Amino acid sequence: MTNPLDLNGKKWPLYVQIKDRLLEDIRSGVLQPGDAIKTEAQLSEVYSVSRATVRQAVTELVHDGYLVRQQGRGTFVNKPRIDTPVGNMYSFTKHMEERGHKPEFKIIDFEIIMPKASVREKLGLREKQLVYRLVRQRSLDGEPIMVETTFIPMHLLADLDQEKINAAKSLYSLLEKEYHIRLDHMVEYFEPVLIDDLNSILLNVPKGAPALYFERVGYVNNSVYELSQSIIRGDRCRYFVEWLVPKQQ
Amino acid sequence: MTNPLDLNGKKWPLYVQIKDRLLEDIRSGVLQPGDAIKTEAQLSEVYSVSRATVRQAVTELVHDGYLVRQQGRGTFVNKPRIDTPVGNMYSFTKHMEERGHKPEFKIIDFEIIMPKASVREKLGLREKQLVYRLVRQRSLDGEPIMVETTFIPMHLLADLDQEKINAAKSLYSLLEKEYHIRLDHMVEYFEPVLIDDLNSILLNVPKGAPALYFERVGYVNNSVYELSQSIIRGDRCRYFVEWLVPKQQ
Repeated sequence: MTNPLDLNGKKWPLYVQIKDRLLEDIRSGVLQPGDAIKTEAQLSEVYSVSRATVRQAVTELVHDGYLVRQQGRGTFVNKPRIDTPVGNMYSFTKHMEERGHKPEFKIIDFEIIMPKASVREKLGLREKQLVYRLVRQRSLDGEPIMVETTFIPMHLLADLDQEKINAAKSLYSLLEKEYHIRLDHMVEYFEPVLIDDLNSILLNVPKGAPALYFERVGYVNNSVYELSQSIIRGDRCRYFVEWLVPKQQ
Repeated sequence: MTNPLDLNGKKWPLYVQIKDRLLEDIRSGVLQPGDAIKTEAQLSEVYSVSRATVRQAVTELVHDGYLVRQQGRGTFVNKPRIDTPVGNMYSFTKHMEERGHKPEFKIIDFEIIMPKASVREKLGLREKQLVYRLVRQRSLDGEPIMVETTFIPMHLLADLDQEKINAAKSLYSLLEKEYHIRLDHMVEYFEPVLIDDLNSILLNVPKGAPALYFERVGYVNNSVYELSQSIIRGDRCRYFVEWLVPKQQ
């Protein structure tokens, strides 16, 4: 176990201390989104440490998503994370539009499959029942931020196809307008994960970067209608919940 | 951009496919928590791939927190993540005890400090106002799962000290019983991050593993009373929220 006295960084590696200083400048607003940070040479002089030490601190902050490197231009403070309330992700499209963002999606894959056991069980299906599997890359203001895989039992929706989905503003608006279906109950799970090979390409972030795995089970009249599994870039999204403490707890 | 046809893993590296197969066995329950997985030699035979390929798949699943290696014993399926409802984290201690877990904490650091700008602003303090800074390692059933740093403005609580905190079951019960203070309003933020050097030691997980950064601002009568910043091991916790879709949205 670490010595309590170490906690203020007194005995931690130098690069950790440099990382903490830069992070504090970002968090306190001394460095604003889009600001260029000092060069390695300048930082190494300011903090009286080697350039290798500075490089390690900066590399980790890039990996963590606080800074972004732009080839030939320098290193900049990343855009702020977009705050999203929990329990209000019914429609990504609607929520983000209301806040002045431009949400878009691109269908990466759409097919009818026999689902894996883990998916089949969550949908409450018997073996060999077929499902639609829709994979979408979702973007905000032109930047990919989420890969969402949606499963819908095939027998619940006649003739769903890629053209209909593409023509609709969102999957939920398609369900409501075309099929008169409205989910009435949601259970959402989220857990921190790492970006894997596939999502690294689809989301344009390094493998191993922080991400949120978000799973939603949507119900109509207590029957599972939809299972969606999303990977959300950690560097661009933050979730929040606000609540009053019950009088007696 | 990836070719849509690649998505089923057909053209992905072999180790990614092996990783997906093992993950599906864990998610579908074919492999249960605590189960040993096959040895590298066995897996390499089952899947007709090299041992290096198997090793890479297993190493990533260990890093992601799905498997755990035990020196000299083998590799096992990790314990399941503990489901925690969002907006109900008022008291970690109370919540976990109600579910049959044994929550404990250990004070890593307790001191009176002049806070950094980012902390000061969140607490709504003027420059040079002092705060208590309490760092606790929190465990569940003997296993460290969270490092929580709590800041409380010093002028709000007379004579808080380490002994009082240690003697109390939880910080909130101390506030209620000793000081007759009860937080009435919370805002909680969470975002995925990576385990850093310090938390790697305190939580006994590898640096770079997935974690949740959880920040809470607690109010009494619209004044900020508490700021807490926690790092929670990603491999042991999952959060969820259940909600009804409003009739008109």
